[in-house]
Amino acid sequence: MMCELFAMSANQPTDVEKYLSLLMPRGGKTGPHADGWGIAYYEGRASRVFKDAAPAAESRYLAMLARAGLKSTSVVAHIRKANPSVIGRATANTHPFEREWNGYSWVFAHNGKLPGIESLKPQRYSRFQPLGGTDSEQAFCRIMNVLSRNIMWGESTTSERIIEVVRPVVKQLSKLGEFNFILSNGEYTLVHAHTNLHALEHSAGTSHNAICVLATAPLTDEAWQALAPGSIHVYKAGRTVGMLDA
Amino acid sequence: MMCELFAMSANQPTDVEKYLSLLMPRGGKTGPHADGWGIAYYEGRASRVFKDAAPAAESRYLAMLARAGLKSTSVVAHIRKANPSVIGRATANTHPFEREWNGYSWVFAHNGKLPGIESLKPQRYSRFQPLGGTDSEQAFCRIMNVLSRNIMWGESTTSERIIEVVRPVVKQLSKLGEFNFILSNGEYTLVHAHTNLHALEHSAGTSHNAICVLATAPLTDEAWQALAPGSIHVYKAGRTVGMLDA
Repeated sequence: MMCELFAMSANQPTDVEKYLSLLMPRGGKTGPHADGWGIAYYEGRASRVFKDAAPAAESRYLAMLARAGLKSTSVVAHIRKANPSVIGRATANTHPFEREWNGYSWVFAHNGKLPGIESLKPQRYSRFQPLGGTDSEQAFCRIMNVLSRNIMWGESTTSERIIEVVRPVVKQLSKLGEFNFILSNGEYTLVHAHTNLHALEHSAGTSHNAICVLATAPLTDEAWQALAPGSIHVYKAGRTVGMLDA
Repeated sequence: MMCELFAMSANQPTDVEKYLSLLMPRGGKTGPHADGWGIAYYEGRASRVFKDAAPAAESRYLAMLARAGLKSTSVVAHIRKANPSVIGRATANTHPFEREWNGYSWVFAHNGKLPGIESLKPQRYSRFQPLGGTDSEQAFCRIMNVLSRNIMWGESTTSERIIEVVRPVVKQLSKLGEFNFILSNGEYTLVHAHTNLHALEHSAGTSHNAICVLATAPLTDEAWQALAPGSIHVYKAGRTVGMLDA
């Protein structure tokens, strides 16, 4: 496994330190993901993206963040194991990647490899272009180019429409390799569980709190569910609002 | 004065801690700019943007950064005094703002106020949209929309062409109020000295090191030059490569 993904969607500002403290030691200490980490916390339509190309387990920057007690209704995080023969440590190669579209910050994190993505039809004159050298950022730009060409974003945009628009490019890219990913604009969190992604939903019955946490592998002994291979899920304010099986 | 600007362009990776340590106490300690700070360090075509809505003088985050010893050939920084009656503290309102265009990260920081910018022709269907509520981010999006509509970015793009394209919108926005700004893509740093901006160039004679530092007010007792009101300057690798008087 190349990397580990994490995301949270909730209906109230929520502290994810409990989960991050279990995820981040996998970055070079208990796990092999020693080539950087990144976390995006949404504040409305904007995101604060913290990232570092140093191992998560050793990062003073990350330790400082853990003490900051940040809360958000939407968080996306990633720890990275680079493919040393191809793409090295650099901020530009560190997830989550971020682009503004339609007055929202969109962030993306990927787990897997997409060999051959560079030989697909070039995106040279498209709106979103990579800054770094990863297959993951190329995939993100392809998804954003498809979204921006096909959706006039507005209040009437539904999770069904988002899934419909991204599904063909997700299917195309999945054929290249492994394409587990998380895409968020702070309002919607869309995930593709290609081979390995788990969800933990806490939106039980009469509770006013709704929270959904996603991770490559379960982080606690709570009742995490393995998402079906090839399925796409959309979360909003801590609840599932859209789903499509492979 | 609302805010303080800082930028550096050099032909070799350079540590700007000397200047930042003189700038940042003005954020709530020796100066009134107590509503956040931000610094963008370029790594190639990507930028690492660190920002915080807390006062610079009190920020543990900034203290951690100061110890990190980051070097870059291009840096843009800003400390902010919000207009309390209008726009509050929030990451989305903190400079530098950042957008990807043409495979480059572009960052922007502004000193001044642009009252009435919201009553200009709406940019609703344009490519770059604000995430927050500041006049500054609106101005940045307007400049980026003009650039992306008028330039096919490539190796033949010159500083003359960039100045020619941005000049009309810079003149239009300057009529609204005060519009000192810094715009960089890591390669080119373009500044508009509307009312108050100083430059310090160290590209003397036979030296292989070229560095230019820009700031609202001189930060040291070195030979800072006040840039002429209304002038536009473009720096690349620490040297002036383009200039246009008002």
